[in-house]
Formats: sequence, C-alpha cells, structure tokens
Amino acid sequence: MIEKLKSICGENYVLSGDAADGFSHDFTRQYAWSPLAVVRPENTAQVAEVVKLANETQTPIVPVSGNTGLAGGTKGEGAIMLSLDRMNRIREIRAEARIAIVEAGVILSQLREAVEAQGLIFPLTFGAQGSAMIGGNLSTNAGGSNVLRYGNTRDLVLGIEAVLPTGEVMDIMSELHKDNSGYNLKHLLIGAEGTLGIITAAVVKLAPKPRAYATAMVAAPSLADALTLLNRLQIETGGAVEAFEYMPRSYIDSHLAVIEGAREPFDAPHNVNILVEIAATAPQDATPGADGTTPLQAHFEELLAEFYETGAVLDATLAQNEAQRREMWARREAAAEITLTHPWRQTHDVCVPVDKVGTFIARADETSSKVDPGSRASIVSHLGDGNIHYSVWFTRNDAELADRMMEALEDIVIDLGGSFSAEHGIGVSKRPSMARRKNKAALATMQAIKHALDPNGIMNPGKVLP
Amino acid sequence: MIEKLKSICGENYVLSGDAADGFSHDFTRQYAWSPLAVVRPENTAQVAEVVKLANETQTPIVPVSGNTGLAGGTKGEGAIMLSLDRMNRIREIRAEARIAIVEAGVILSQLREAVEAQGLIFPLTFGAQGSAMIGGNLSTNAGGSNVLRYGNTRDLVLGIEAVLPTGEVMDIMSELHKDNSGYNLKHLLIGAEGTLGIITAAVVKLAPKPRAYATAMVAAPSLADALTLLNRLQIETGGAVEAFEYMPRSYIDSHLAVIEGAREPFDAPHNVNILVEIAATAPQDATPGADGTTPLQAHFEELLAEFYETGAVLDATLAQNEAQRREMWARREAAAEITLTHPWRQTHDVCVPVDKVGTFIARADETSSKVDPGSRASIVSHLGDGNIHYSVWFTRNDAELADRMMEALEDIVIDLGGSFSAEHGIGVSKRPSMARRKNKAALATMQAIKHALDPNGIMNPGKVLP
Repeated sequence: MIEKLKSICGENYVLSGDAADGFSHDFTRQYAWSPLAVVRPENTAQVAEVVKLANETQTPIVPVSGNTGLAGGTKGEGAIMLSLDRMNRIREIRAEARIAIVEAGVILSQLREAVEAQGLIFPLTFGAQGSAMIGGNLSTNAGGSNVLRYGNTRDLVLGIEAVLPTGEVMDIMSELHKDNSGYNLKHLLIGAEGTLGIITAAVVKLAPKPRAYATAMVAAPSLADALTLLNRLQIETGGAVEAFEYMPRSYIDSHLAVIEGAREPFDAPHNVNILVEIAATAPQDATPGADGTTPLQAHFEELLAEFYETGAVLDATLAQNEAQRREMWARREAAAEITLTHPWRQTHDVCVPVDKVGTFIARADETSSKVDPGSRASIVSHLGDGNIHYSVWFTRNDAELADRMMEALEDIVIDLGGSFSAEHGIGVSKRPSMARRKNKAALATMQAIKHALDPNGIMNPGKVLP
Repeated sequence: MIEKLKSICGENYVLSGDAADGFSHDFTRQYAWSPLAVVRPENTAQVAEVVKLANETQTPIVPVSGNTGLAGGTKGEGAIMLSLDRMNRIREIRAEARIAIVEAGVILSQLREAVEAQGLIFPLTFGAQGSAMIGGNLSTNAGGSNVLRYGNTRDLVLGIEAVLPTGEVMDIMSELHKDNSGYNLKHLLIGAEGTLGIITAAVVKLAPKPRAYATAMVAAPSLADALTLLNRLQIETGGAVEAFEYMPRSYIDSHLAVIEGAREPFDAPHNVNILVEIAATAPQDATPGADGTTPLQAHFEELLAEFYETGAVLDATLAQNEAQRREMWARREAAAEITLTHPWRQTHDVCVPVDKVGTFIARADETSSKVDPGSRASIVSHLGDGNIHYSVWFTRNDAELADRMMEALEDIVIDLGGSFSAEHGIGVSKRPSMARRKNKAALATMQAIKHALDPNGIMNPGKVLP
C-alpha cells in the first residue's frame, strides 16, 4: 500500500510512523489515533488516484486540511490520512465578478488577506482562521461571528470540485448565482464532513470590504429587548449588523476573574451584555466629521439614545478608537480560554430560534443545577443567530453524570425546536446525539445516501452518522 | 385505487374524468396528459397515506401546487396527481424572529400580503405569484427579479416538512440559522422538482419591508460599465440593489412595436438599457426633503451624475413617482408578452458568470444567425445574477432546426462556464440538456440518490433526470 501511494504522490509525500505524528491527533489532543499512512497529493488527479486505490482495497480514507475541528472529524485509526495542505493555490480572484477560485488547502486567513488587497473580503471569520483551511471550512460548513450578515460557509460557496468515494472527479465549479440543473450536490457535500467525498476546490463569493465599523457594548433589560434592538438596527442600517454577541453577567464575572487586566464593560453590573458591531461600505457613512465621529457611529449613537430614553437599553459604550474596539472583542474572544479553566466541563454548541435563547438559558440553568447541584455554566451566544455555547462546569469528574447532563440539556434544545449541533459539526463526538435526536426519516435518508454513494464505506468512516 | 384514495382523502377530494381536467395540462398548454386521478389531501398525514399507497402499488405520483411551471414538471400521464391546494394555511408568523411557517398550498402573493401587514416581506417575487404556491416555489427553487438582494428560494428557507417516496414524513422544520446535524436534506429536496418527495410545509425567512424605492432607467456604454456601476451601487448602499435588469436595444424596439402606448426610455436610442431599483428600510433614507426627493433618490442621482461625468453612464431617468416607476417595470415585465408574439420561438433560460453576459449574447447572436440566417432574438437579462432569457425567433417551424439551435447555444453556455437551466428548472423539457451537458459524475450521483430514496421510481417519474 505505502509503495502504491508513493507511486501516486511521490516518495516525499507519503508519511508513516513518526513522520506522521502531526496527523495522529486533533489539535486539542482530545482524540488520538494511528493512521496507516499520510499522503499529501499535489493536485486533484492524485487525490482521485488515492481514493480509487482506497476504494479498491476497501481501506478507510480520512481527508484532513487544517485539523482545527472540535468534534474529532479527522480521527483516522488505520486509515489513509489524505492531507490537502499542498493544494494551496488561489487559482483566481475576479474582483468585478466578486468571486475567488481556491483549492482546498488554502488557509482561510491567507485567502482573506489576498482578497482584502483588492478591496474585498471573504467574510468567513473565526478563531482558528490562521490554521483552518477552505476544505475543512466547507466540509464542516463552518460558522463564526458574522453569520448574521454573511451566512454560514455554505452561503458563501457557488461551486465545488470533489473526488467521490469511487475516485471519480465531480466538477461542479459553478460561478453562477442561478443554477437549477438537478439535485443540489454542492449543498450535499458541504457539511458532510468528508463522508461523501473529498472537496478539492471551490468557487467562493466575495463581498465589499467595510470602510468603517461602529462597535459598542450595550446593556439591555432582557434578551427580548435586545432582539427588538437588533431588528431595529437591521432596519436602520439595511442589514449591516455584523455581530450581535451576548454575554450574561456570569460570563463577565468569569472574564474578570480569569483574564488579567479585564475590565467591567459598564459602571454598574448588568445581566444582558451585548457586543454589537455594524459595518458600512459606503464612503458617506465612513468619513469622520469634525469631532472624528463617522456618520455610521453617530447614527448608531442616536438609536442607542432613543432606546435608552424608553428604558429598552440600560447603558451603552461606543468604541471611540480601534484599541477600544479590540478590547470589546477581546472580552468576547476570551470565551475558549475562560471555558478551559475548569477541569470538568462539557460544551454544548446548540442553536434555538432567535426568540427562544433566553428561555433555553433559563431552563438549562435550572436543569443543570438539578442534575449536578453546585455546577456552574459558562455561557456566550451568537444571539443574532440563536447559537449558544453553553459550557457546564461540573462539581466532579463523572462520566455517567456528564452523559445525564448531555441528555437533559438536549431535551430542552429539542423541546424548543433547536439543534444539538450548531456550528462545530458532528464528527465522532455527537454521533450519540444524532442517534437520539435526529428525525428518524432524515437519519434513514442520510444512511441511504451514504450507502448509495460510498457502498464500501471507505470515506471518513465512523463520522456523522450513528 | 380510486376507492382507496377516497377512503384516505374523502369522497369529495378525489377527482377523475372531466372533473380532473384542470390537472391534465400545464398553464401554457404546451404539455397535456391524462392523470389516473387527482387527490386533494387536507393534511400531511393524508399525503403520507396516499404516497404509501402509490409506493405499495408502484403507481406514479406527481405533486402539483400552482401549476405555473414552464418546463412540464407536473406532467402526470397515468399518475395520481397530488394537489396541495387545500393545505393552504399560514400556520404562524413570528415577526420578532423574522419567520413564517407555511403549508405547501399557500399562494405566494397571499403569503406576501400576510407578512406585509406586519411590516415585513417574503422577498420571493415573480410574474406568476398570484397563482404559484410555496410547494412549487421550493420544489423548483424559483428565482425572480430580486435574487440579487435576497437570493433564490432556497436561500429563504430554514426548514421543511416532506413526505418521502416511502410515505414516511421527514420533519426537519428547523427555524434555525445554524444547524450542522448531518447531511443537508433541505437543500436536497429544494429544487428536486418533486422527484425525491413531496414538500408539505416550510419555515421561511422574512425581511424588513422597504420604506422607499429609488428606480431608474440607465443607459451605459457597455455591459462592463454596467457591472462597474452595479458594484459601486452595492458598496454605496450596503447591498441594497434589488433589481438590475438589462434590456438591449432590440428589446426596446420590440417593446415599442408590440406594446400599445410603449415609450422610448431615453431621448436617444442606446444599446445597454438597465432598469435599476434600490430599496431602503431606514426612515432617514426614506423621508422626503423639501423638494419631495428622498435621501435615497438624491444619493442615487449623485452617483449617476458622477458616472455620467466620466462617460460610464450615457443617460439616466429616475422615476419621480409611483406611476413612472410602474411604467419602467411594465417595460421589463412585458418580456413574456413580447416573446409570445412570434410563432416559432425557443426560450433559453441560461446563466453565465456575471462578467460574461455580454460575451454570451455576442456569441449567441452570431451563432443563431449562422444556424438560422434571418432569425432574431428577444433578450432580457437579470444582469446582476448573470441570468439571461434568450428567446430565438426562427424563420420557420422546423424541429430539427430548433434542436440544432438548442445544442449550438448550449455549446456557448457551457464554454463560458454557464448553466443551461437558471431558474425555470428541468422538468421534462430540459432532460436532453441534462444528458448532454451535466457533469457525468454529478449525473451518476443524482441517479444513485434517486434510486436509493425512491427504489420503485414512483415520485414524479420522467422528470429532471435523463
């Protein structure tokens, strides 16, 4: 097998033993495995040859790009790990058509920098963007903090090229905004976490780069008031709200306790603290007046004052400069660091309808206190999307307790019409939840599709489906 | 069979013979057929029972809602026609969450009116909206004239309920903006034209209702200049361009010749005539000044003046009132009427990358003149999406000639990375094009999925797939 792989990819691009060490665990080292070999093909034809070989020999094959996932989606015990890192070309940027054509191994931040040089953005943005690659972004349908404005990864993709489990290349590299020619296979492969094929390239949409941001911390009496504010801001700005991030008082307390130099967002403590960011692309919104304030900021300030008058906003602080903006974002971005301070934790990446976030949190707090009295929760939420990261801090290390907590909180999610997996995907970690919670007819349909397209079950086996 | 259907849906809701006449042809009467029976279930459970019966007896079953399609997608020779017209409830409108929950038989314009009463819009809009129903909108992934701003139908849908070919009900009525829990079956069924199941209900996204429109006819020296204008307008308005509709000189000439009372858009004739519409939701953009002009219009006018100075716009007329706006739209909406004036015609609903629309039209004009010297073309284009409706008017009624024309124009579409089907779907009319033009691996994948989910081939047979 190793020799055959070397004849396809070249002597230097097949790793095994110690050389494959970097591909034998995820980046949090929560999962570890021993791959059969790691191959690093340089083009789609080589990927196709490797997949054909895997299919003929019924060898498991696991695609890996940036390996920054949190759900164990790249676990490859005894598998050929197929790394896309050498397929890292930005093939084309067409500014007037607002598209880029990229290979799966392009690092997200590199794509972002390349298009920004042309006054455009590729909107997808999240913590791991300096290592995460386009292939993984698409395979997991990555989310992030500006989904509210630009959508999830799948909404940013016009076309893909993929190698199917048989080794055939499916070229649907459409650059089109309207294309109704049969079943939408692009959306089927996006988010399938490499279980239906390996995405090797994509056509992605670009957007104009904002010229100005208005960023504020806002305290509201309730989440319902916050949602009213969000809707009003969307109306007033034509949908220019980029981020609407909720931090409850408990999060602010943890932030103050854990992060050196952390400061209160307001003079008085509040329960509902929201980081709001609005962006404008138009010069007339972005040109500062005599006092240095942009019209975008001034408009935002007026609206906040109006809400303050009616009591629907309790306090607000606008970032007056980039340093203040960075401080606001740093508070939000400390979430992972804060969560990790506790040794016995369980993170629920869930989504509920936007008007049910408050209900979920209240019920989850009540339930988690019953399941593990004395436990606490670390909570942040992409409120504009209804996406909540609810991390339980247990009183003790107890797997049975953790399982009970998982099921009890899932009960609430499902009762509210929510999803047990919002933006981190299923991988291996949430397969039990898929079995328990996903609509049975949907699960059976997924299994039928998987079996039809990958009858030998070689593509990233043991992921996504129960 | 008829008796069994009556026992499921009730005596009065199973039609056959003359009573089924309205379900025996499409609305253009291009296609005609004799259904076995027409059933009009009142709820999802009845739909499921009917599908189960069809599956057990291996009887073809064809879903139909508004029956306004142009591709013969509801042709049901010997089939059970399943009409969704009685499932016409708007179950819920949640204004703060910006969603509506609707059944498949809701007429598009009725949904639009219901949500407008709450200051919101369901953005999907096109000529047939007074008859077309949500079920058909989703099954065909309908487009229209404001896709540029709001996306295609699939982009407006959060969740669906569908009856699968086995008769099982798949409830994925998600209201969520982030939901990564397995394969995206919503996007698989949307646009599948009823070949993988019957969509019975949906959760759709709503948007704020614009307070003001700025509408203009603009003449540009070239389509490249027009695209530059579009991109600039998007930057200046934060993406508020709702329509960017191209009418070449030949279209204006036909309009003047065919439509009574039609007027020239400008004092002098121009080759590139664009209907531009921008919309604003913010009060500060919509409040008229002393001269009656809204800030939105004033801003638009300034930009047009700037482009005029540099020669990138040759002329422009802004609608000063609703009557003038309606006249501009009437010119564009006369396209169907104009096309139908010629007896021997062939409409190509194609899409190319937005920066290749001009190239397509130039090459298509040249090719169609070669294939049928003396033929003419009637052309309109949703330029912002790259979607072109290119209708050939032949010199004679000749099926062989028409086939050659179809293939010759498809050659150009494919060469430019385009699609032979943009927004009208495949139905029966474009199955040969699917066979000829769709990527072979993609076609094989579609066939495998169809076979896996509908092994008896009962769901809308003879559609979409070759």
